[in-house]
Amino acid sequence: MNQRIVLNSRPHGLPNADNFRFEELEIPAINDGQVLLKTLYVSVDPYLRGRMNDSKSYIPPFQVDKPLESGIIAEVVESKNNDFARGSFVLGSLAWQEYQVSSGKGLTIVNASIAPLTVFLGAMGMTGLTAYFGLTEIGKPKPGETLVVSGAAGAVGTMAGQIGKILGCHVVGIAGSNEKVALIKNKFGYDEGINYKITLDMEAAIAKACPNGVDIYFDNVGGQISDAVIANINKYARIPLCGAISLYNATEPPLGPRIQPALIKNSVLMQGFIISNYAARFPEALAKLSQWFTEGKIQYTETVVEGFHNIPSAFIDLFKGKNEGKMIVKI
Amino acid sequence: MNQRIVLNSRPHGLPNADNFRFEELEIPAINDGQVLLKTLYVSVDPYLRGRMNDSKSYIPPFQVDKPLESGIIAEVVESKNNDFARGSFVLGSLAWQEYQVSSGKGLTIVNASIAPLTVFLGAMGMTGLTAYFGLTEIGKPKPGETLVVSGAAGAVGTMAGQIGKILGCHVVGIAGSNEKVALIKNKFGYDEGINYKITLDMEAAIAKACPNGVDIYFDNVGGQISDAVIANINKYARIPLCGAISLYNATEPPLGPRIQPALIKNSVLMQGFIISNYAARFPEALAKLSQWFTEGKIQYTETVVEGFHNIPSAFIDLFKGKNEGKMIVKI
Repeated sequence: MNQRIVLNSRPHGLPNADNFRFEELEIPAINDGQVLLKTLYVSVDPYLRGRMNDSKSYIPPFQVDKPLESGIIAEVVESKNNDFARGSFVLGSLAWQEYQVSSGKGLTIVNASIAPLTVFLGAMGMTGLTAYFGLTEIGKPKPGETLVVSGAAGAVGTMAGQIGKILGCHVVGIAGSNEKVALIKNKFGYDEGINYKITLDMEAAIAKACPNGVDIYFDNVGGQISDAVIANINKYARIPLCGAISLYNATEPPLGPRIQPALIKNSVLMQGFIISNYAARFPEALAKLSQWFTEGKIQYTETVVEGFHNIPSAFIDLFKGKNEGKMIVKI
Repeated sequence: MNQRIVLNSRPHGLPNADNFRFEELEIPAINDGQVLLKTLYVSVDPYLRGRMNDSKSYIPPFQVDKPLESGIIAEVVESKNNDFARGSFVLGSLAWQEYQVSSGKGLTIVNASIAPLTVFLGAMGMTGLTAYFGLTEIGKPKPGETLVVSGAAGAVGTMAGQIGKILGCHVVGIAGSNEKVALIKNKFGYDEGINYKITLDMEAAIAKACPNGVDIYFDNVGGQISDAVIANINKYARIPLCGAISLYNATEPPLGPRIQPALIKNSVLMQGFIISNYAARFPEALAKLSQWFTEGKIQYTETVVEGFHNIPSAFIDLFKGKNEGKMIVKI
């Protein structure tokens, strides 16, 4: 048998189990030029929340009653396409479905001898690329500068912090538990960590952790954490806007202090980006990440949940901060 | 006799007459190397409001009981400095004082044969430079793109709109009266104008005036007008943050919708700047502005108030939108 997960209804606020519907279907047959894929690892990512709304964005919204999709590592279990041998592993944006047919378009063959398969969803995949381009192209770190990363223990955050360290920054991470703060300092080389959930005065805590102010703020979360970082921002600082997970489930437009005056006062650059903007340069970035990885300069951590039926709950848990590093569902 | 204006008290909200104090003093004598300056034209500018607060910013705050200062055109009425002949005109950041002594440091000689003296405070002075660098360096306009300018009938706005037209943009201005809208369209070549004071749905009005969306938003005002522009922003848009006059007199930190999600969704760049960031490149920009000016491509308008005693009220009137173009006090 074969299963898939479709969008049952659009979430209002935090998604819940009712927004997802499991459907059974046959394992499809393939035609010439096609492959049959067996899903092995499913990446669940905060940005998918935006696609569940019926609003124009950089990628089309998911449709109700249609399968959800995300980055997936699959095995080619049957092939009538000479580019993809049976038994090979591929990465693609694929449906949340146990078995599916593909023409091969948009699939990348993954070399399992370089790194464990899941790494191609994280450190050497979309999240690694996101951290790399956001930090190097927008953050433009210089040695000795101070980099603050919010969502520091998340998939992108752990990469942004490590790349910041490789490039010579003083790196401060903000995360949501003492365990996460210990993790980013001990495993990922952050110089300082702040647990925002137990810190009463975030502005002061950031000032203390950043005695020379904040030159780069790699923002994964938005909201009040970002307000506190911006209160410590230096002249000519850069703010790559990667995500705003704290706001994704808001049911009313979130209000906050207007930031334009602070950006003017300090000549700050703030730039939103999505990783596909840099698609033409993925090979160059992957070469760099791969080099750092093989040199042992890049560590990674994953939160692996098992079972196809747990994809929705793993996704929902992202917004509860239950993951360290990349959240992956193993099928 | 001689008069000066000192900061009597720091304003809370909109400044009023009590925040200013007139003092009488002797006309000073000059020593070797010095000049005696007679103030002719005083520039009053929204950014001075920030200097009246006791908060760290890009220029030191004004001190209570000390003279206020701004861009001033003065005549050299006495000189013991060979660089400045008696009778020449100079531009500098000078005290609000009828007669004052200077070592000549920071003064620029103004060539009154090129343009009327006041133009060196506006179109060919700080406001022209502000529009030029904000638009060209951050806005990076391409022919055919849509540029929206807020504070469109103000000193910087009239210049930003005209430079946008010279560079081939579809230019839409937002201003606060029907007269101002007529002015920017008829005199400054704006393609469309919106009077925000009588427009109920600014978001829809901007959408209508910008059928292809907004590629560049030159922001002089901040606040709700900016929210409405950002709701119409295009992918890869650029937002030079020049000013936030709508917020300068706020007595509580102004709240508004958080803008980071919109910037992420559309890969928007937002950058604050102050004109001194570009000081090294003033000569190049002034050459360009001067060329456009002599070619008749740059028009200007001024609101000239007469009398030293009217400097404070002219300044306060900026926040009531009483000026068209550059606000200047003629002494």
